Amino acid sequence: MDDRPAPAEVAGPEAAFWRVTRLLETYGRLLDEDQLEAWTDLFAEESRYEIVSRENRALGLPLSLMLCDNRDMILDRVYALRKANIFNIHTDCHVIGPARVTASGAGLAASAAYSLFQTNPGGESRLFSVGRYHFDLVERAGELAIASALVVVDTAAVLTLLATPI
Amino acid sequence: MDDRPAPAEVAGPEAAFWRVTRLLETYGRLLDEDQLEAWTDLFAEESRYEIVSRENRALGLPLSLMLCDNRDMILDRVYALRKANIFNIHTDCHVIGPARVTASGAGLAASAAYSLFQTNPGGESRLFSVGRYHFDLVERAGELAIASALVVVDTAAVLTLLATPI
Amino acid sequence: MDDRPAPAEVAGPEAAFWRVTRLLETYGRLLDEDQLEAWTDLFAEESRYEIVSRENRALGLPLSLMLCDNRDMILDRVYALRKANIFNIHTDCHVIGPARVTASGAGLAASAAYSLFQTNPGGESRLFSVGRYHFDLVERAGELAIASALVVVDTAAVLTLLATPI
Repeated sequence: MDDRPAPAEVAGPEAAFWRVTRLLETYGRLLDEDQLEAWTDLFAEESRYEIVSRENRALGLPLSLMLCDNRDMILDRVYALRKANIFNIHTDCHVIGPARVTASGAGLAASAAYSLFQTNPGGESRLFSVGRYHFDLVERAGELAIASALVVVDTAAVLTLLATPI
Repeated sequence: MDDRPAPAEVAGPEAAFWRVTRLLETYGRLLDEDQLEAWTDLFAEESRYEIVSRENRALGLPLSLMLCDNRDMILDRVYALRKANIFNIHTDCHVIGPARVTASGAGLAASAAYSLFQTNPGGESRLFSVGRYHFDLVERAGELAIASALVVVDTAAVLTLLATPI
Repeated sequence: MDDRPAPAEVAGPEAAFWRVTRLLETYGRLLDEDQLEAWTDLFAEESRYEIVSRENRALGLPLSLMLCDNRDMILDRVYALRKANIFNIHTDCHVIGPARVTASGAGLAASAAYSLFQTNPGGESRLFSVGRYHFDLVERAGELAIASALVVVDTAAVLTLLATPI
């Protein structure tokens, strides 16, 4: 099976939907499999990752729950999590809903609702976070890469300083 | 990116799947964003919206949890929610599973499992409802519109009179 | 609408994605509708069904939570559940995330995260299990059939001996 998508400039909306869905699947799976370094590879050289609460966003407040405004900060974040992994012993399961895909400049914009469940070492699975991804995507070597990932969480109540990416 | 789908009569099952998925995504997103008026625009002029419990449906009981058997009733429902919004201060997050699409007369029938999470002002996100959508869809100006939305909820226990649409 | 997919050998990755998504949808829906016998028809003549915990899989432990290493065992399992159905009075709702599809020999390999919610007769819906499906798929009469279904559950804590398939 040829895994390489057709060039974006000849692809219609169905192809764009499939490419974005594949990226979302990869994004969630790499986090679930604790492949954080591979997860950072989904980001473009010039990129940012931000988590904001729905309430702050609606009020226009600039406060982020997590903000990495360049790729080095994203890598640092993962490095810090590896060093601190004794505190980070849950496992994640992302279940992501259907993608919305629109054109955005030379690239694509995508959004999707997500549910994130965490399981602790005691064997309890529980809802950890729900919200919506908002991605700006660019072309990189025939694949989509994330230029901007904005995660809008429906509540900030359960998030901790050492939380893994959502 | 051309956002207009190919005409349904020349489209194969993959195109139908994509169109239905796009409608489901829009349906859930508009509710999550509290864009209730735009949500009503997804319904055809002749349309109905009904919520029934799985148990009642299995028993063949006619009792609905919510029934709007024409479009004006759907609009009225949204109007009532706007007037009563002081009681309706949660936020929704719909995570919808893959669509099943079949032919139905001149249109399409679609179903999909959904999970609906609600977050209250205290910052608690919780599971609110799971179940399945059953839509009858018709063509309207090159897009799919909902002629009938039947929401089968797995339990009616948590629903209240002033509940927002599911 | 022609429901029969194009032959796999001429189909690209988008068609494979659509076919796998359709199979996942059918898989979850048949379980949710308690159509267990039809669910077994999704399996190829030579097939297996296994549930393992994420922890055991990571540790390389061979212990399964459920193992049917041929199709007769899958049928037996469903027969046993029908005989014991007085103990099995919940309803299921599977919400499955986007599919990952890769080539695997002459067939396809697929995986997807799932969330499974159960509702009991008292009307309480709750999270029952999250994890990931890993399927090996083969062609059978123009459709995909399951040669191997490995369900990796994020926790084994809530599973019981008489659990329905996940």
